[in-house]
Amino acid sequence: MDQLDYFFNPKRVAIIGASRHPRKVGHVIFRNFLEGKFKGEVFPVNPNADDILGHRCYDSVSQIKEKIDLAVITIPAQIVPRAIEECGRKKIKSVIIVTGGFKEIGNIELERDVEKKLKKHGIRGIGVNCLGVFDPYSGVDTIFLPSYKLERPGKGGISFITQSGAIGSVILDWMAMKGYSISKFISYGNATDIDEAELIEYLVRDKKTKVICIYLEGVRRGRTFYELIKKNSKKKPIIILKAGLTAEGSKAVSSHTGSLAGAKEIYGAVFKQSGAIQAHDLEQLFDFARVLSTQPKPNGNRVQVITDGGGFGILTVDALINNGMVLADMRPQTHKLLEKHVPRHVVIKNPIDLTGDTDSERYRIAIEASLNDPNVDMIAVITLFQVPSLTPDIVEVVAEANAKNKKPIIAIAAGGRYTEVLKKSLESYGVPTFSYPDRAAEALRALCEYGKK
Amino acid sequence: MDQLDYFFNPKRVAIIGASRHPRKVGHVIFRNFLEGKFKGEVFPVNPNADDILGHRCYDSVSQIKEKIDLAVITIPAQIVPRAIEECGRKKIKSVIIVTGGFKEIGNIELERDVEKKLKKHGIRGIGVNCLGVFDPYSGVDTIFLPSYKLERPGKGGISFITQSGAIGSVILDWMAMKGYSISKFISYGNATDIDEAELIEYLVRDKKTKVICIYLEGVRRGRTFYELIKKNSKKKPIIILKAGLTAEGSKAVSSHTGSLAGAKEIYGAVFKQSGAIQAHDLEQLFDFARVLSTQPKPNGNRVQVITDGGGFGILTVDALINNGMVLADMRPQTHKLLEKHVPRHVVIKNPIDLTGDTDSERYRIAIEASLNDPNVDMIAVITLFQVPSLTPDIVEVVAEANAKNKKPIIAIAAGGRYTEVLKKSLESYGVPTFSYPDRAAEALRALCEYGKK
Repeated sequence: MDQLDYFFNPKRVAIIGASRHPRKVGHVIFRNFLEGKFKGEVFPVNPNADDILGHRCYDSVSQIKEKIDLAVITIPAQIVPRAIEECGRKKIKSVIIVTGGFKEIGNIELERDVEKKLKKHGIRGIGVNCLGVFDPYSGVDTIFLPSYKLERPGKGGISFITQSGAIGSVILDWMAMKGYSISKFISYGNATDIDEAELIEYLVRDKKTKVICIYLEGVRRGRTFYELIKKNSKKKPIIILKAGLTAEGSKAVSSHTGSLAGAKEIYGAVFKQSGAIQAHDLEQLFDFARVLSTQPKPNGNRVQVITDGGGFGILTVDALINNGMVLADMRPQTHKLLEKHVPRHVVIKNPIDLTGDTDSERYRIAIEASLNDPNVDMIAVITLFQVPSLTPDIVEVVAEANAKNKKPIIAIAAGGRYTEVLKKSLESYGVPTFSYPDRAAEALRALCEYGKK
Repeated sequence: MDQLDYFFNPKRVAIIGASRHPRKVGHVIFRNFLEGKFKGEVFPVNPNADDILGHRCYDSVSQIKEKIDLAVITIPAQIVPRAIEECGRKKIKSVIIVTGGFKEIGNIELERDVEKKLKKHGIRGIGVNCLGVFDPYSGVDTIFLPSYKLERPGKGGISFITQSGAIGSVILDWMAMKGYSISKFISYGNATDIDEAELIEYLVRDKKTKVICIYLEGVRRGRTFYELIKKNSKKKPIIILKAGLTAEGSKAVSSHTGSLAGAKEIYGAVFKQSGAIQAHDLEQLFDFARVLSTQPKPNGNRVQVITDGGGFGILTVDALINNGMVLADMRPQTHKLLEKHVPRHVVIKNPIDLTGDTDSERYRIAIEASLNDPNVDMIAVITLFQVPSLTPDIVEVVAEANAKNKKPIIAIAAGGRYTEVLKKSLESYGVPTFSYPDRAAEALRALCEYGKK
């Protein structure tokens, strides 16, 4: 078993600093394990409490008889080294140190002490100064924000490593709302022990992870990082959003984490040479990840657009062309087949305009024809759900075609709450959805480029 | 009174083709007037029904005794000319012809007949083949999609003209979900009588309209359109999204509306020379509109960033710099003032990082200081609402500062449902909100550029 597995699949977890007070970090984390999907045992540790939420509380990890796989530390910075000593004596091999107040505010010596003590006992650590881990498969959840403020996404294939806890947490919240899903989330903070390079290596080995997303401010071991990406970028897509690419942004990075950020051009070149996919904003990071984690590699860049709204068709064509794709030219026999099965006012071109009186069946015919036509490499389906005769079973029609995994399919649908409900359903079937054509086209471009590798 | 006023502020409206059947266009529109905010009288016209939803139904408009200000026509295309004749005899001066099935499917003669009959009786017409008008102030609502599928936004300062009905409708739905608000919405379809140029002239005169947004596929009277924008773009911001800018997109336009679309470069130059603001996608159209309709002109391009999450601060700095803005350099006395009133771990630079333990009061102090510092032209406030001590009264703090109308203020907040609720509240106070920094920076750039005019 991989030592890092204990962070994501522990059987027994100790929460050092578990608390009775609802606003305390140690309370929220303890509750996450109690009330979430975690199926193992969880042990609260706090010398000042007898029991927490009905569970016996321990003065120290040494009092626990059972073997502990993972300790989560949420006590004040000054007493963290002592807690690590105790973990060492208890033979705990993995700790997540949520506590902040180290290097990031000038307490360099204290952080060095933590580092030394981890090494001394052969303990691997995530943190300090981090949110830690969220894994929807195992239920490990060390995010100290309650779920009414910050929802958690469901199970999927995207793993997300983030240097910034705040970025990480709001992204999880946003993903949950959108119906996007995740494999593993890791906020590693100051990287006192485990850093981004080691996490990437682990996620490349991890079977549940289809795509690795990284939010990066600075890199600790530049050369190692580069070699690592280069070695692994063909095995799994690695998508990186680098913050601090402008001189001004770079200055802001150093006051945030103390890491040194480099110039835009250098990073751009490094990413390109190493085979990483660079995202230019947070939405793009997950747009790319959703398409790359769910869709097959396309054979080429010829896209068939299917729409029920002419205007959206045009905007999609513009966006595809601007992103280096071409419009597919269906075979004559496909045209004839469509002519036989759809009403005469349907425009059988590219885009195929099913028009505003379409039903789901017309979509089924058009998607099926596009899947079977060898002149089509990818399918962009625009589903304006609001048109009168389109019923929610359009979701199953698109999902069934997607399940064949024959050609990349994405859906574009703009609107309000009704639309968002149906889009969430599409996402749950592994169909990447977009509100507007531009972002969809950028994601298809990323898929094409990765497909060529 | 302006003749076009009758489209937006009629006292008595006839629905020609009102129907008892819930799925019929004439039913939905009649219900919109009955059950929405419309305060005038509405008369159903349909020779095949005695009453609809408890209202006496008329065989023809000529049977109605009262003066009718506006007729909405939803009957089949072939009998539209006859209905217009009847409107002419009844001295109705404004009609919205929702019915499709004219030029767009080759029935050119039929559409010409409609045009002639409108001219003959001096009737002004919106349509044919359109959604017509939505006005949240008067309650006029001819959109034939029920509100469970397509929600309606509230009252605001943005007017939106759209050639495509589908684009228009999904945008309204999306705006409602986001809490964005609108002044007048007009889907004018084939522009048989009234076209985009005349609508723009009207909206420039209209006091409720602060900003005009246009979704455009092709232009009927190119020269007039150009002159009109040029004449009016200094009076009110005119923001245009032109679809069909690629050769392929342009071809799709001609099969959609029969209008001729031109090249990317030509349109780009025309918009620039005329003073129009060009948006590059649908989200940007309304990002620009929200900022331009609510925020004062800035004195310069120096932005102060205030954040509670370091990572978001860095991404915002990158985005601002990439969009031609600079970071404001606060005066020494402002620094001193802040040092006195905020805890020591707050980073008093640009960005001001209030850190993850901030409350609303810290925001109040930082925003107030930025408003009072002459070295600051604009304020970008990042509010990650999820942090533990930040309570929803942060909304009032930002709204109060915004109400002073002293300097442009925008808010950036990413997250899930909790965040969306608070963002909607900010929008209702006239604070433009963004999920991610890039779109916020692009909108501030548009504001700066318009500010220079």
